[in-house]
Amino acid sequence: MEPHPNLLSLDDLTDGQLEHMFELAERLQADPTLGRDALAGITVGLLFFRGSLRTRSSFEAAVAQLGGHPINLTAHTDFWELEYREGRVMDGRAPEHVRDAARVLSSYVDLLAVRPAPEQRKWAVDRADQQIGAWAKFANVPVVNMESGLWHPLQALADLFTLRRALGRQTSGSSGPRRRICLAWTHSPTPAPVSAAHSLLVAACRAGYEVRLAHPPGFDLDEQVVAQARAAAGASGGELVHATDLHDGIDGVDVVYARSWESLETYGDPTLSASRRAKAGDWRIDERLMARGNDARLMHAMPVRRNVEVTDEVIDGPRSLLFEQAANRLPCQKALLLDLLGRGADL
Amino acid sequence: MEPHPNLLSLDDLTDGQLEHMFELAERLQADPTLGRDALAGITVGLLFFRGSLRTRSSFEAAVAQLGGHPINLTAHTDFWELEYREGRVMDGRAPEHVRDAARVLSSYVDLLAVRPAPEQRKWAVDRADQQIGAWAKFANVPVVNMESGLWHPLQALADLFTLRRALGRQTSGSSGPRRRICLAWTHSPTPAPVSAAHSLLVAACRAGYEVRLAHPPGFDLDEQVVAQARAAAGASGGELVHATDLHDGIDGVDVVYARSWESLETYGDPTLSASRRAKAGDWRIDERLMARGNDARLMHAMPVRRNVEVTDEVIDGPRSLLFEQAANRLPCQKALLLDLLGRGADL
Amino acid sequence: MEPHPNLLSLDDLTDGQLEHMFELAERLQADPTLGRDALAGITVGLLFFRGSLRTRSSFEAAVAQLGGHPINLTAHTDFWELEYREGRVMDGRAPEHVRDAARVLSSYVDLLAVRPAPEQRKWAVDRADQQIGAWAKFANVPVVNMESGLWHPLQALADLFTLRRALGRQTSGSSGPRRRICLAWTHSPTPAPVSAAHSLLVAACRAGYEVRLAHPPGFDLDEQVVAQARAAAGASGGELVHATDLHDGIDGVDVVYARSWESLETYGDPTLSASRRAKAGDWRIDERLMARGNDARLMHAMPVRRNVEVTDEVIDGPRSLLFEQAANRLPCQKALLLDLLGRGADL
Repeated sequence: MEPHPNLLSLDDLTDGQLEHMFELAERLQADPTLGRDALAGITVGLLFFRGSLRTRSSFEAAVAQLGGHPINLTAHTDFWELEYREGRVMDGRAPEHVRDAARVLSSYVDLLAVRPAPEQRKWAVDRADQQIGAWAKFANVPVVNMESGLWHPLQALADLFTLRRALGRQTSGSSGPRRRICLAWTHSPTPAPVSAAHSLLVAACRAGYEVRLAHPPGFDLDEQVVAQARAAAGASGGELVHATDLHDGIDGVDVVYARSWESLETYGDPTLSASRRAKAGDWRIDERLMARGNDARLMHAMPVRRNVEVTDEVIDGPRSLLFEQAANRLPCQKALLLDLLGRGADL
Repeated sequence: MEPHPNLLSLDDLTDGQLEHMFELAERLQADPTLGRDALAGITVGLLFFRGSLRTRSSFEAAVAQLGGHPINLTAHTDFWELEYREGRVMDGRAPEHVRDAARVLSSYVDLLAVRPAPEQRKWAVDRADQQIGAWAKFANVPVVNMESGLWHPLQALADLFTLRRALGRQTSGSSGPRRRICLAWTHSPTPAPVSAAHSLLVAACRAGYEVRLAHPPGFDLDEQVVAQARAAAGASGGELVHATDLHDGIDGVDVVYARSWESLETYGDPTLSASRRAKAGDWRIDERLMARGNDARLMHAMPVRRNVEVTDEVIDGPRSLLFEQAANRLPCQKALLLDLLGRGADL
Repeated sequence: MEPHPNLLSLDDLTDGQLEHMFELAERLQADPTLGRDALAGITVGLLFFRGSLRTRSSFEAAVAQLGGHPINLTAHTDFWELEYREGRVMDGRAPEHVRDAARVLSSYVDLLAVRPAPEQRKWAVDRADQQIGAWAKFANVPVVNMESGLWHPLQALADLFTLRRALGRQTSGSSGPRRRICLAWTHSPTPAPVSAAHSLLVAACRAGYEVRLAHPPGFDLDEQVVAQARAAAGASGGELVHATDLHDGIDGVDVVYARSWESLETYGDPTLSASRRAKAGDWRIDERLMARGNDARLMHAMPVRRNVEVTDEVIDGPRSLLFEQAANRLPCQKALLLDLLGRGADL
């Protein structure tokens, strides 16, 4: 296989690459016509094994506004089941191996963006991110993870960009007080996957912020991811603190990053999961809670269940960074594409 | 929200805007390369909550041929149910509010074209066009209605363009005889929604034509829409006349606009509706009926059930304007896009 | 209807046209930026009544990389059932006639590529290719067959291009030994349609190769297609030979073209078909078999069930032309588009 840069998690980018990407994103956002033909002749394949509104539209818009052409392939209508295991006798449901699909598609497009569909039965299996790993291994073009079981790098890229804008860039050893973020679990009847929370947690610790992680018992994030975040905080001069409730979590923070996520302990069992969530129905962000922060701003990746996760008052009030955060997906993804495809140099 | 022009019904366009749009459409049709780069850098989101062949392909072609990029989002695969009611506690089926989806998408695209999906249970509810109204209210970019419960402005735009070409522009107070159109209900086992008939009725009355509305008992169009059409006819020097059968409807007219539509009285009740339609099985357009007109031409928005709504002989004969009418969707929609996006000035 | 060139089967192209297309494809493959704006302003409609990964992505990439715009229409979401029979009273399931859909779409796009969905009940019916024939008859723009019941010209175009590259161009009356290809049936629990095998068989015979056709009893290809292939071989100086097993089929050949295909004798009966296939479970290509050839190369249109149809060792080894063959879909389809649309002259 030909070597190619990928974005499977934000760890695939060095601090220098991140800096460059954010600087370019700033310029792309300031001037929407910048780079209009930078991806002329480029085709980008978008493979959705699971649906998406935000990622799909913002990624397609990013490619198109840079003059490239996105090709959308959806699991239901466009392709069949793929085999991911090596060396099998393929007499089962899958008529094609991912190594072949990845290689063939690599001869038609210049970059592959994939949103895989985890089995959603066992966390130990899904956390291995076998599918996105296989696409990256067997493709001959850059592969971008549009949200796997473990990570959501595109969301975290925009989240980090938003944090820096809102709080200023946190530099280790800076003389000012460390910026504080609370990653706050919220109740939802249909919680999101843990991926966005994972990517944000590690990114914020890596960036040197003090991160408060607040969630009910039984809603711990992945152990290894939390360990990775803690290590990143150690290296950056940041800090990772656990809070047992929203009060402690939000107290004095600059940003509340609200997110529902599923329990990994009851992963794959919807009944048990629902029962566990029901006990934490009061984990909801309102103005009273936000007021405990330090002129705290609100972030949320969306979709958001209004008045269940966060109140209308906060979502629509001056604290909210939600729409800026969503809008930032576009210039961040433009910068990423230009970087991965080596097309940003002269912009 | 930022103010933005929309096209929810043809009433959103003044007579002057319509005139300009038709003049531009004429030029775009005469020269398919005109405006080839007019929408360079522009992305247009197409949201289909219900399927479409004609609208989808003609609208996408319109954007693409002007150098823009269409992004297609389909309800089944790309997004979930949306909440439309204000101030709810969103603990039901919808994980996202339309106000958030509309605002977020507005940060990725320059225009949103939406085909909402009416509930199809109660006409009083669906006629309120709550969905398209919400998109228009909460988006920050122009919103185009690709057929709601009440209106189908894109169809009527092309219909009016076709009528003017076929009959000449009807001007109030013109010395010649008033041009006559019969909007004729036809039988179909799967009738169309009333939206296209509504938009055509009001547009033709507004343009000053004499409009004969012919349908069986129980198939009245929406009361308020008919009143609006009557008022528009009064203002333009046109006329709205009811006919009780196809003979009276077609007698002496210049154009027969054939369309099946569902009964609003039995709306939401397929069994009752089918039973009612069965009694009007002879409402079918053939050459004998067309011959009662004044060298009458035939229009039909399509799809058309051949030999059920209209005979092969008429559809394929010299009276038929069907294919010209369908083809006119493209230049009319190009003109509309250029107008709404402020890109037509130098063409 | 306006006359227009189509590609329903490779027989629609003369030898001269094929030569020109292959020469252009060579240049397009050598320089991926060649023809970047050749299809500026062109829109191409892709209608999928059945899904596809390779054809869809390679065809869309071909249009986009030449500066054109592809419009994807999928049967499930974008349109309803079409009527194909002439002169019917359309009071059944189909609300639209193909003659109308084809004509209307022709006014929005410059070329229509269609993958029809055969009924899959009776071979006598499906072999008539009624659907693609109707699209070609009623459209006013070139129609390209993206795989019908009988033919798969796009696959065969790339296959022939691959063969010429691998074996050298076979010219009748050439002094060297005739090049030999074995079209070898392989076992698969989900066999492919016969279309790709049909198109390859006729193309290879027409090109003057000696073609060995190897399959178990009961898996004969269509009688008329085989007769056409035999006649083409006679005219070109090639030869069509039947082999009763893989040993005889592969003995001394230069290329093994492996493909599973369904039995036409049990067409439409999945149970009988499965039973018949089960008796031929040993029809699998491995290194031992390939070694019987003349330094034989392997071709396969894919998807391929590894270790069922062909072993990993052969697919991933030096004999394999699979990925080159798949990659060749792109430049061949670019050349075809340029040719059909009259846009290749100055390249």
